[in-house]
Amino acid sequence: MDRREFLKGAGLAGGATAATALTAPAIAQGTMELKMVMPWPKNFPGLGTSAQRVADRITALSDGRIKVTIYAANELVPALQEFDAVSQGTADLYHAPDYYYAGKHPAFNYFTAAPLGLTATEHTAWIELLGGQALWDELNAKDKVKPLLVGNTGTQMAGWFKKPIEKADDMRGLNFRMPGLGGQVWRGLGMNIVSLAPPQIFQALSSGAIDGTDWVGPWNDLAFGFYKVASYYYYPSVVEGGAALTLGVNLDVWNGFSKSDQALFHAAALTENGMMYADYTANNGAALKTLVTQHGVHVSRFPDEIIDEIGKIAPDVLASVAKDDIGKRVYEFYTKARDQMRGWTTIAEPQFIAARQRILGT
Amino acid sequence: MDRREFLKGAGLAGGATAATALTAPAIAQGTMELKMVMPWPKNFPGLGTSAQRVADRITALSDGRIKVTIYAANELVPALQEFDAVSQGTADLYHAPDYYYAGKHPAFNYFTAAPLGLTATEHTAWIELLGGQALWDELNAKDKVKPLLVGNTGTQMAGWFKKPIEKADDMRGLNFRMPGLGGQVWRGLGMNIVSLAPPQIFQALSSGAIDGTDWVGPWNDLAFGFYKVASYYYYPSVVEGGAALTLGVNLDVWNGFSKSDQALFHAAALTENGMMYADYTANNGAALKTLVTQHGVHVSRFPDEIIDEIGKIAPDVLASVAKDDIGKRVYEFYTKARDQMRGWTTIAEPQFIAARQRILGT
Repeated sequence: MDRREFLKGAGLAGGATAATALTAPAIAQGTMELKMVMPWPKNFPGLGTSAQRVADRITALSDGRIKVTIYAANELVPALQEFDAVSQGTADLYHAPDYYYAGKHPAFNYFTAAPLGLTATEHTAWIELLGGQALWDELNAKDKVKPLLVGNTGTQMAGWFKKPIEKADDMRGLNFRMPGLGGQVWRGLGMNIVSLAPPQIFQALSSGAIDGTDWVGPWNDLAFGFYKVASYYYYPSVVEGGAALTLGVNLDVWNGFSKSDQALFHAAALTENGMMYADYTANNGAALKTLVTQHGVHVSRFPDEIIDEIGKIAPDVLASVAKDDIGKRVYEFYTKARDQMRGWTTIAEPQFIAARQRILGT
Repeated sequence: MDRREFLKGAGLAGGATAATALTAPAIAQGTMELKMVMPWPKNFPGLGTSAQRVADRITALSDGRIKVTIYAANELVPALQEFDAVSQGTADLYHAPDYYYAGKHPAFNYFTAAPLGLTATEHTAWIELLGGQALWDELNAKDKVKPLLVGNTGTQMAGWFKKPIEKADDMRGLNFRMPGLGGQVWRGLGMNIVSLAPPQIFQALSSGAIDGTDWVGPWNDLAFGFYKVASYYYYPSVVEGGAALTLGVNLDVWNGFSKSDQALFHAAALTENGMMYADYTANNGAALKTLVTQHGVHVSRFPDEIIDEIGKIAPDVLASVAKDDIGKRVYEFYTKARDQMRGWTTIAEPQFIAARQRILGT
């Protein structure tokens, strides 16, 4: 009997334990030891620390009954093979953005980030309240993965360049690292887009193999040291208004959970969804200041011409996902949810933030 | 033996149950039935539904061991006496914004909303990562309440008026409903500020007892029907960049929980913190459209003159909380956290949202 069969057996036995009056039933359950893989270094700020925090919360919520062991990039499986590892049962859980695995289906991109897509909170609303989870489950079922929303970096920076980007033409011919549909938009602007696992990016930028890179935002980018080899840092990332992270669970493991353990994993993941976004919000400001004042980084807004060029390319890139039935439905539900929410999103928080900044100064 | 003593006893007995090998210990624990009070109608969109959702999640996470019964405004205790009820043990839990109870200490305001204060995500970061929880615990301990962050409405609208507000002088002498420090800012602009429990507001506005009111945002305000008696609806609410909700737990009940039940309540509350904000994000857009297109509401941005007038008054209102040691520390930590975060908050999501809107149109 393998471990999963054992756990299922234990669950059934537990369910059959008789309840006494007044004192609730004590359900005997097996301890579980689960393996979590991720494409980042252990304790990497924001990402590795998030994986650790959700693992710790699962253990705390289960009173020590469920233990999660975390494996960094390349420790148990090669970086970017996390999804396959969980699909095949080599690992039980992964903590990663689904657009790293868009080779499975381009609709995976919509569960991380899409050009002209959703902010972090809009993404949570889409997954949890506006039908996203059902489509996500359907998209992942054939690979035997149950996806849960576990985090968001918030709006990302557009990225690092070795030279100033003053007009769209300055991008043409550059070698740039960018995953997902965002990479396809940049390709439309004439850049050569390369796919690199996180541990490879700094070396590639340093050696000149690439001329620029997207990563995340000030906190993470400071940690990776990109300022040592590139000085021009641009926003807004029109292609990543937020980037969601997935807690992928092997579907057999998930189906072996009791209803309350499924609720536990769902709550642990959703709690971390808010915590990760809060963590980036807490730390990006100071990191941005450090990059500018201590490392002389030039932080600039892309000119409107580049935003308008993105606007000419992005809609076709988004629609390209609608190549089959599930892709079509993901595309339609996602853009419908976005258009339902963005009127309010545009006047609410940004207008408050602008008024606050007007009064308090920079 | 009262119920709390019984629960503590059950917890101790459970802790002493022997563990067997391989199969984890089955800890015998008493079932708990907890009473939650709130100042809103049952199932009121966003607020009452949030209380129900967190209650349901607590039950699901505890596998039915913990049941929460919800009491609407005036059902178990009069509206606005929720904090006292939990402090005194008449109820176990409350779901409400702490600024309703600022009579206890003006620093309570900082745990809901402050003028020029924090957005929803900044608030989560402050409570969970930047020292807010410890100050909040300290502020509540003498009243025997353990506070947990359980939700946020996101940025609110400034409110409803019966006549257009084109300059600061148009506000002078109006009777306006607004709780918290925001009310003190409006008082500084010459309005007469009244405190009304949620169930009283519509009638007061309808009868002319008040000339205007803050409430929440399009979704909630549509549900309360304010458009029937006022037509002018303004943003931004410079005084409520987000409004946080508290799950207040009677401290004896909290201290009687096992460590894993404390983790359960913390995770259930934090999960709901994100869910409530997502719920408002999902629903405000359509409600705003309904108010404008079906009910002829005039939605306008306050002119800069009013924002600048707020800027002259708000800093003193904020500092007025620093009247004693705990007030001083809450004020200092809160404003320090804000100033650490707002540089990034200003360029990140708002710039993405502006670019998205530029491309997609309104």
